[in-house]
Amino acid sequence: MSSEGSNGHNCVGWAARDASGTLSPYQFSRRHEIAGIVQEVGQNVQGFKVGDHIGVGTIVNSCRSCDYCNDDLESYCVKGAVYTFNGIDVDGTVTKGGYSSSIVVHERYCIKIPVNYPLASAAPLLCAGITVYSPMMRHKMNQPGKSLGVIGLGGLGHMAVKFGKAFGLNVTVFSTSISKKEQALKSLGADKFVVSSDQEQMKGLAKSFDFIIDTASGDHPFDPYMALLKTGGILVLVGFPSEVKFSPASLNLDMRTVSGSVTGGMKETQEMVDFCAAYELHPTIELIPIQYANEALERLTKRDVKYRFVIDIENSLK
Amino acid sequence: MSSEGSNGHNCVGWAARDASGTLSPYQFSRRHEIAGIVQEVGQNVQGFKVGDHIGVGTIVNSCRSCDYCNDDLESYCVKGAVYTFNGIDVDGTVTKGGYSSSIVVHERYCIKIPVNYPLASAAPLLCAGITVYSPMMRHKMNQPGKSLGVIGLGGLGHMAVKFGKAFGLNVTVFSTSISKKEQALKSLGADKFVVSSDQEQMKGLAKSFDFIIDTASGDHPFDPYMALLKTGGILVLVGFPSEVKFSPASLNLDMRTVSGSVTGGMKETQEMVDFCAAYELHPTIELIPIQYANEALERLTKRDVKYRFVIDIENSLK
Repeated sequence: MSSEGSNGHNCVGWAARDASGTLSPYQFSRRHEIAGIVQEVGQNVQGFKVGDHIGVGTIVNSCRSCDYCNDDLESYCVKGAVYTFNGIDVDGTVTKGGYSSSIVVHERYCIKIPVNYPLASAAPLLCAGITVYSPMMRHKMNQPGKSLGVIGLGGLGHMAVKFGKAFGLNVTVFSTSISKKEQALKSLGADKFVVSSDQEQMKGLAKSFDFIIDTASGDHPFDPYMALLKTGGILVLVGFPSEVKFSPASLNLDMRTVSGSVTGGMKETQEMVDFCAAYELHPTIELIPIQYANEALERLTKRDVKYRFVIDIENSLK
Repeated sequence: MSSEGSNGHNCVGWAARDASGTLSPYQFSRRHEIAGIVQEVGQNVQGFKVGDHIGVGTIVNSCRSCDYCNDDLESYCVKGAVYTFNGIDVDGTVTKGGYSSSIVVHERYCIKIPVNYPLASAAPLLCAGITVYSPMMRHKMNQPGKSLGVIGLGGLGHMAVKFGKAFGLNVTVFSTSISKKEQALKSLGADKFVVSSDQEQMKGLAKSFDFIIDTASGDHPFDPYMALLKTGGILVLVGFPSEVKFSPASLNLDMRTVSGSVTGGMKETQEMVDFCAAYELHPTIELIPIQYANEALERLTKRDVKYRFVIDIENSLK
């Protein structure tokens, strides 16, 4: 980690370098990690010292002067936030992600990870975690006793369930597959599990949810879920299906709201990490060596992961 | 006006009684007006006396005990609000609207109209007015200096422009027809007028609106309007096109919100009428006799009205 303007490190990582998408070892200069330990700090860095545990999320830069940056919403920066991988930084270089031995990042975009919180758990918080936490907080989905529906049980969905239970909500998981039922109820602690094609059960839940968070990226109808919202209820979309389509009646007659979100700002990300450390809330992960990355990618296409792969870069690249 | 349980009046009105939709004089018992003067009060009525100017909006009854009724959101009553015309009341009778010499309504559903505010102006407030006022207040569209877009310049849209200017907003009208430009700018006081098919102008307004209120009931694309919202901006839908369809990117990437609404509660309706009286805000109307109603309906199908017909029942039925 370094303050702005510092030059980078030579490091080794794994990358896909042709259209096949296959990852292999790769040498390059400057940038890249996700959760790790500070090796070096620039002379103007105030908030971190060597040895601190830190994380880097989906963005590594932004203009730092627009209304959104000033309002701690860096991911909505007017000039466009610089994404951690495959982004173009202000100096014109392409950002190269975190599958590597080190990364150089301005301290503003670094998150302090409490020493008692495992680094492997911290990594998924910085994307999946904050992507659900941010809209949940913005829409007051943290009020105990309220009812939360979670559509889709992947990396984002399983974090929404965990946050929901930590906030004291009544949590129902909606999934297309009954195979996720036991995991949802037993391992994640959801209160109810509904197969979304079960029209009888869906009908019985009409107007019973304060909030629904929709993490599904596959195409799906919206009206059946909107019918489950109470009057004034909110559906938050964080997935990217090909379109959002519903009847005005689903929206207007019960004063409902559909709202979208992507990731969250640095201040809120820090708040979330601190919350997870205080409540001992950990993502459910599979820790793998980088050599397993291609097999993991294959399993991802089959949605065969509970619920995030985390690559142990430090031990893999030794 | 009467307290609950009072028997009705014999009255004469105009009604459509076959599929042609043509209105003609009609005698019936019990119920119906929109803005008028109290002729009689039931013994338990506290809030009104004979001679008071009052209004009745789109609903004349609700359960009065559910969470929404208790929260002054009668139009979202769990048991279903009873609409003023063609609704089924708790006693099983069909409500018959306000094209008549008198109406009997529980005081809860009556609005007090200040004596200095014309009854003819009050009537459109109770439907068009409250339908835009309610979501504008709920979503804080009354903060001076903010930018408001109004899609569609009919009964609802023209009220949104008037409220917007009264609230100190910068108001832009979007319409499919250039013919409405002069009215929008000169008569209604909008700051800007945009023909929505003008892609150049639309593009120039990208990310510049805090709020957009969509009063159009005809089918129209949503993505071009959502692109005009700032990060965190809100589009409120009060019209009923056949569907709402947009890209998740339009919603998520800028943390935008789409929210719906229908009419408003009695308390808020009273607040709006008081606001209009205090700020001398009047709907733009054409006052007509009931004998003109069929011609007016024909003109409505051609959207040829600025911006609401108000029927002068008292003088028409003399």
